[in-house]
Amino acid sequence: MQEIFFPGIMFQDITPLLLDPKAFKDAIDLFVERFKDNNISVVAGIEARGFIFGPPIALAIGAKFVPLRKPRKLPGEVIFEEYVLEYGSDCLEMHLGAVEPGERVLVVDDLIATGGTLCAAMNLLERVGAVVVECACLIELPELKGRGRLNGKPLYVLVEYQ
Amino acid sequence: MQEIFFPGIMFQDITPLLLDPKAFKDAIDLFVERFKDNNISVVAGIEARGFIFGPPIALAIGAKFVPLRKPRKLPGEVIFEEYVLEYGSDCLEMHLGAVEPGERVLVVDDLIATGGTLCAAMNLLERVGAVVVECACLIELPELKGRGRLNGKPLYVLVEYQ
Repeated sequence: MQEIFFPGIMFQDITPLLLDPKAFKDAIDLFVERFKDNNISVVAGIEARGFIFGPPIALAIGAKFVPLRKPRKLPGEVIFEEYVLEYGSDCLEMHLGAVEPGERVLVVDDLIATGGTLCAAMNLLERVGAVVVECACLIELPELKGRGRLNGKPLYVLVEYQ
Repeated sequence: MQEIFFPGIMFQDITPLLLDPKAFKDAIDLFVERFKDNNISVVAGIEARGFIFGPPIALAIGAKFVPLRKPRKLPGEVIFEEYVLEYGSDCLEMHLGAVEPGERVLVVDDLIATGGTLCAAMNLLERVGAVVVECACLIELPELKGRGRLNGKPLYVLVEYQ
């Protein structure tokens, strides 16, 4: 994977993985192996790159896929959660009724940096009574200590970048 | 699926399909059955809902997944294509080098309305010398005649809404 730096912000480019069908499949298989026996009924994917990894995992483990989207993208009634980023603030929305109280949820994104986005996703899910079982990302940037913001929830990653 | 209407613009909500793991899998299986023997090496998915359907198809047929994204989302060098929508204009970007000349490409989105977005995607791909084999969408709105803007390329859809 390529590393690309902007002033003060580090981006990781996941697209080279997607250009290698075997590597992409291997990555999905690792997630599926980890989560297939966890009684997870919902995979929640964060827009937009969580949409690339979440659905293949959901399909393989027989779970629903629930998109957590940017504002004004979901056509139904939503609940939302605002959060602070390194470079401003943002908001995630989820359809009301998409996740039932007590459902066991896996939250998927491509990358965890400061953890703000995953934290907002977990808050959204817990506000509707769901049980966040674990978070899964392709890449972790451990220097940014995002893992510490997940309220003790486990985080499974395939790659760490120091 | 729910139909939701805004003044002058019709939205279709695909999220109920994603909440039914069997229906979502059946939809992906239909796409895979259609495209698995077409010698397709690239599935290009249009941000953001094309990211939900494209990767499972790409993984199943052993093709690369190439995201076609909104402006300023891809970190590498891109080519772009601007296009007109019912409600303004928009732009799609693709990483240079993601698709090689001569590669056979399937373009995936969730819905075809007027066809402007798919047409822009096809233009991007053809500008780098790729061969667009077919387009695939979950939903077609035939009244908007988007199919007629695809330069004669075949379009495969699972659902039509009159």
